Amino acid sequence: MLLQENIPIKYIFGKIRVEVMLVTIYALLIALLYKNFHFTRISIPIAVPTLLGTVISLLLAFKSNQAYDRWWEARTLWGAIVNDSRTLTRQLFTYIDTHYGKLEEIAFCERMAKRQIAWCYVLSRQLRGHDPMPGMDKWLCKEDFEYIQGYSNKAVALLELHGADLRNAYKLGWINEFQQIEMDATLTRFSNHMGGCERIKNTVFPSTYKVYIHFALILFVALLPFGLIEFFGLVEIPMVIAIASSFFLIEKMAIHLQDPFENKPTDTPTTAISATIERDILQMLKQYYKEDKPADEPASKDKVFYIL
Amino acid sequence: MLLQENIPIKYIFGKIRVEVMLVTIYALLIALLYKNFHFTRISIPIAVPTLLGTVISLLLAFKSNQAYDRWWEARTLWGAIVNDSRTLTRQLFTYIDTHYGKLEEIAFCERMAKRQIAWCYVLSRQLRGHDPMPGMDKWLCKEDFEYIQGYSNKAVALLELHGADLRNAYKLGWINEFQQIEMDATLTRFSNHMGGCERIKNTVFPSTYKVYIHFALILFVALLPFGLIEFFGLVEIPMVIAIASSFFLIEKMAIHLQDPFENKPTDTPTTAISATIERDILQMLKQYYKEDKPADEPASKDKVFYIL
Amino acid sequence: MLLQENIPIKYIFGKIRVEVMLVTIYALLIALLYKNFHFTRISIPIAVPTLLGTVISLLLAFKSNQAYDRWWEARTLWGAIVNDSRTLTRQLFTYIDTHYGKLEEIAFCERMAKRQIAWCYVLSRQLRGHDPMPGMDKWLCKEDFEYIQGYSNKAVALLELHGADLRNAYKLGWINEFQQIEMDATLTRFSNHMGGCERIKNTVFPSTYKVYIHFALILFVALLPFGLIEFFGLVEIPMVIAIASSFFLIEKMAIHLQDPFENKPTDTPTTAISATIERDILQMLKQYYKEDKPADEPASKDKVFYIL
Amino acid sequence: MLLQENIPIKYIFGKIRVEVMLVTIYALLIALLYKNFHFTRISIPIAVPTLLGTVISLLLAFKSNQAYDRWWEARTLWGAIVNDSRTLTRQLFTYIDTHYGKLEEIAFCERMAKRQIAWCYVLSRQLRGHDPMPGMDKWLCKEDFEYIQGYSNKAVALLELHGADLRNAYKLGWINEFQQIEMDATLTRFSNHMGGCERIKNTVFPSTYKVYIHFALILFVALLPFGLIEFFGLVEIPMVIAIASSFFLIEKMAIHLQDPFENKPTDTPTTAISATIERDILQMLKQYYKEDKPADEPASKDKVFYIL
Amino acid sequence: MLLQENIPIKYIFGKIRVEVMLVTIYALLIALLYKNFHFTRISIPIAVPTLLGTVISLLLAFKSNQAYDRWWEARTLWGAIVNDSRTLTRQLFTYIDTHYGKLEEIAFCERMAKRQIAWCYVLSRQLRGHDPMPGMDKWLCKEDFEYIQGYSNKAVALLELHGADLRNAYKLGWINEFQQIEMDATLTRFSNHMGGCERIKNTVFPSTYKVYIHFALILFVALLPFGLIEFFGLVEIPMVIAIASSFFLIEKMAIHLQDPFENKPTDTPTTAISATIERDILQMLKQYYKEDKPADEPASKDKVFYIL
Repeated sequence: MLLQENIPIKYIFGKIRVEVMLVTIYALLIALLYKNFHFTRISIPIAVPTLLGTVISLLLAFKSNQAYDRWWEARTLWGAIVNDSRTLTRQLFTYIDTHYGKLEEIAFCERMAKRQIAWCYVLSRQLRGHDPMPGMDKWLCKEDFEYIQGYSNKAVALLELHGADLRNAYKLGWINEFQQIEMDATLTRFSNHMGGCERIKNTVFPSTYKVYIHFALILFVALLPFGLIEFFGLVEIPMVIAIASSFFLIEKMAIHLQDPFENKPTDTPTTAISATIERDILQMLKQYYKEDKPADEPASKDKVFYIL
Repeated sequence: MLLQENIPIKYIFGKIRVEVMLVTIYALLIALLYKNFHFTRISIPIAVPTLLGTVISLLLAFKSNQAYDRWWEARTLWGAIVNDSRTLTRQLFTYIDTHYGKLEEIAFCERMAKRQIAWCYVLSRQLRGHDPMPGMDKWLCKEDFEYIQGYSNKAVALLELHGADLRNAYKLGWINEFQQIEMDATLTRFSNHMGGCERIKNTVFPSTYKVYIHFALILFVALLPFGLIEFFGLVEIPMVIAIASSFFLIEKMAIHLQDPFENKPTDTPTTAISATIERDILQMLKQYYKEDKPADEPASKDKVFYIL
Repeated sequence: MLLQENIPIKYIFGKIRVEVMLVTIYALLIALLYKNFHFTRISIPIAVPTLLGTVISLLLAFKSNQAYDRWWEARTLWGAIVNDSRTLTRQLFTYIDTHYGKLEEIAFCERMAKRQIAWCYVLSRQLRGHDPMPGMDKWLCKEDFEYIQGYSNKAVALLELHGADLRNAYKLGWINEFQQIEMDATLTRFSNHMGGCERIKNTVFPSTYKVYIHFALILFVALLPFGLIEFFGLVEIPMVIAIASSFFLIEKMAIHLQDPFENKPTDTPTTAISATIERDILQMLKQYYKEDKPADEPASKDKVFYIL
Repeated sequence: MLLQENIPIKYIFGKIRVEVMLVTIYALLIALLYKNFHFTRISIPIAVPTLLGTVISLLLAFKSNQAYDRWWEARTLWGAIVNDSRTLTRQLFTYIDTHYGKLEEIAFCERMAKRQIAWCYVLSRQLRGHDPMPGMDKWLCKEDFEYIQGYSNKAVALLELHGADLRNAYKLGWINEFQQIEMDATLTRFSNHMGGCERIKNTVFPSTYKVYIHFALILFVALLPFGLIEFFGLVEIPMVIAIASSFFLIEKMAIHLQDPFENKPTDTPTTAISATIERDILQMLKQYYKEDKPADEPASKDKVFYIL
Repeated sequence: MLLQENIPIKYIFGKIRVEVMLVTIYALLIALLYKNFHFTRISIPIAVPTLLGTVISLLLAFKSNQAYDRWWEARTLWGAIVNDSRTLTRQLFTYIDTHYGKLEEIAFCERMAKRQIAWCYVLSRQLRGHDPMPGMDKWLCKEDFEYIQGYSNKAVALLELHGADLRNAYKLGWINEFQQIEMDATLTRFSNHMGGCERIKNTVFPSTYKVYIHFALILFVALLPFGLIEFFGLVEIPMVIAIASSFFLIEKMAIHLQDPFENKPTDTPTTAISATIERDILQMLKQYYKEDKPADEPASKDKVFYIL
């Protein structure tokens, strides 16, 4: 989960501890060589590392852009899961109107709605590589729970159960053919969102770029002390550390951002989003329990002009 | 709200007052050290801050791009809310044609249309963290007003009421099954727009980038006086202030732009947009009141060739 | 309208006349100071304006990108209006087949098609802030013309009339329920295109960026003569003018491009596009008049295998 | 058409022959002045052309991006035309099942399918400004061929004929109302693809940018020899030519790429794509001729469980 | 297939072996000339290659962006193929409910589902230029296998067979007209995904850009030794190699990434994706075999409230 306040400076710099240490030792060595042995010939014009720095900056900007796009797409997909979970619940309560009375309608809708909550949690855990099943018996009836055990991709199985329930509802005449098509389209959207998340999870950023950027960065850092030594002497050391850290930091940030389902603080907050969906859906279910059948009589008493 | 004329220079520079003051003191100190104590060795080649300046420029361009995209997406979502509010109202008046006479039709459509106005205001206030309920009794009937009290997300509740009304209209035969599906698709779009706004509101820009950019910027400003002092002497001070202000300003602008629902002058003008929707919808309602039933007889008298 | 040949050099440079004059005077003053009073200390290293130049280049590239995107989006929206106007006309002539004979069908379709022409002109004029009504009596029947007077947004009113006509056509059985939905979807697209244009018209580019870029540009031009004076002497003056003009020009171009509905030569050619739509729709109407009923018998005589 | 091998170096450099010649003469003149008349004062620091070079690079990158986007959008639109031509043919053969026997069905489908081939060729030629009619009698029946003569936009007329045929098919009961809507949606997509191509064809890249970039480029090339002369002497001439060619080349490439329907080697290969569509559609038609009615009995003999 | 670990450094540098060797010889020659013959006049200011380096960096960033976009679009298209394959299978099992009993339903669905597996493999092999047919008899019944032999584009033929089967299912009353339309829309999406892949496969990146970038790169490398020789002497050689390798590497990477269907390690992993689709679809089929008819009774025993 990515919140404003929960990324301390320490966490950020902890990521590049090893690199900073190596750079410090390296810069120190160069400074000692220069000072004590007067290898003045090793100084190079600052323009050389500057040229490399410009190239690397452009590459890092390119990489940051792609990483951000992946991260934002993952966030957008989960935003769409929120939207479509709400839409599915609204469609359930406004389309279905069983002939067998209120209780069965609510039981059916409740089962679908709770299975939707389960689907969000299952997808969230699957993407992070956790076992999706623990605790899911809270949201799934025993038959559903056992049925999905046979699948390697549990989220696909839950969508299948959704589809089977819709067919039954159609057969029983609770929804008409158009409403079945409409709700099936909602399931198709869930399928697409899930597939999008899996695509981001399973597609690595082209390693060739990664390796190249790292290689160019090391070359740049290796040249940096030679470019600065003439002007700074020992002050060169903190200067090299600061500039190198800047570049290493931005490289690391891009690497972390590009994989938004890996149990890191920069992840897409799928658990928090699932909890929001749970709260919203439960509230809609509770309303129906509490107020009995408010949705059927939303109009003001002095305006009632239709009978159901 | 973001208008051409309402951002005075003073407001803009007010944002970076503290930074400018600190930079002034810092630049003054360096100049005094250089002038009075002749620490001429502290001068560094201008190429070093230039290298950092290029990197930071690219990062700020990247950040500005993302911030602008968020801001423009928020604006586009509210533009879509305008479009779909008009569409909903048009669909109401061209689909519905109750068997019970003109009055009930208009009463039903009016209730839906006014609830749509309420939805826009409620969403706008919710996004800014205000209490959405005050004044909403003007647009909602008493039952609706009380119903949505039970929800934490009032806008979701209003869409639910919309859906329930559509079901009733379908049951009463006022709209056919295809028209119900079509108008439900309009509700789904509202749901998506709302979810998109919430996504932008709740997703912070990756803090790691923010912290890094700020860190690199401070490093850059810290080096700047040393790079300029040799050529400018005391004139270095206004120069450093001017260049540093440039960078701080653009950083601040990106930060403000990236959160378009925070009660700032750079916000998406959701209240103004809601007022436009209110005016448009009320005008359509008034037309129906005033002209009685003009939509049924738009054709010229000398061309009437159909009877309703 | 933006055509290849109609932007003379004079027009382009006319836009930055004032800036160029001020820069000339400023550069002349600096040169005189340097030459006559030997203030040689005022020369600064060229790297300082270069640093600022790089930052401004990136900002101008960012701004040009956003401005171009707005301009291209406006053009795309009007392209979609062309497409959907053709689609609406095709749907009219292939869906509608009145039971009351050919004449009424054509009269109805003609009324809708001509109102569509009117809608394009009205939208075009509204966006540019002109009075949309003059000359519209040519395309609208008297009832329609009077009806839309009551609206502040005439284009919305015309779409409402379209919708009302579709309802009547459906009631009369000229189109079936699916065709009504399909054509209503076309109206919804018109509503979205109109809303998109209004969004671009009403949303100013973030002023903060505008002010900042202008501020940085002035700072850059102010430093430029000091950076060039040492090498050029009096030749510095044309050099400063040339470089400053380059930057001012690109800033101006971005400003003009970003508002594509303001009666400028870089505008989206909405009037020309409307004229194209008029020509296309009239041609389709004429075909129906001239050739009587060719669309009913497009098949070759030796292949006729169906009867209507 | 843009193929890997068919752009020889000679073709590419042929485009900038005039520019290269003028630059050569100019560079030669400067070198002679410097060498023979010892105008050593004319040498300028290389940083001045570098500053301009950076700005121009960014502008050319911006322009290349927009040009590539236009080119890629044109290619994508023609890709979509391929997809939808296949879809239309598949829909024809799987939706239509005339009551009057196999022959008429195939005759009808064949007429539609061949007209679709004609539409692709007609659109391709219209976009390039050629006469679209020659040879089209091969794909169109005589009535269709004569009908579209009356239109200035032949492709629009062909879509109208498609629509009219669909209406007839619906009237005759060959397709149901949903299938009519579905195939009409395919026609609407053709209409959008066509409109998109026309938009790219008719919208010139903002001339102001074009003029400005050219102006800045000339300024840059004019300064270049002065920046290089001090270090290179006569060697300055090939150096200036090489660098100037680089910039002129990329400017020319962007200009060519941005207009993908102008009979140039960098065009979208619309004729080749149309030929592919022709081959695919004819193969589907032939299959139906050759194998008589294979689509009705695709199932294996030992699994036949349905009768038509 | 592009995995994190399977690109060894050796593979990456193997790509630029020839270039590195040529650059080494070239740099050595320059160094010898400078050292032994004292052609000190050949040294040039480092700013000249820096200027070219900046331009090339921007061009490579532009090219990397476009190449990455092509590669990501290819991946997204195959992700969509996964989603829609799942959707097709879900639709098969939740829409179809034959009147002739369970066995035939499963036989029909199995045939469609297995043909879908075949379609993925066939498309994957076609894109890479392999013979798509070997092994396909495992997934296709004999009739289908023979039917598609007559087509040059086998994937198009398989979609046609899908469409024909849907028509038969509709004729037999197994699916209603809306379900036919819905599943036909899924086929249309497959057609679009296929067309998108073919577009990426058949459209070469504008050769003009490719040639230009290569030309500019060679110019840059040719100038580099002259810019570095003054400061480094013989150390210039490894420096030139390192910087040149950086630029050659990124050029090569972009070239490889831009063609994602060419049997290279950076390809879109179409075979692996097809295997995933195979596993998912087979699991859904097996479930139906194993558990007999679980989808019809997913509800818990104590909640059964509907009969089929």
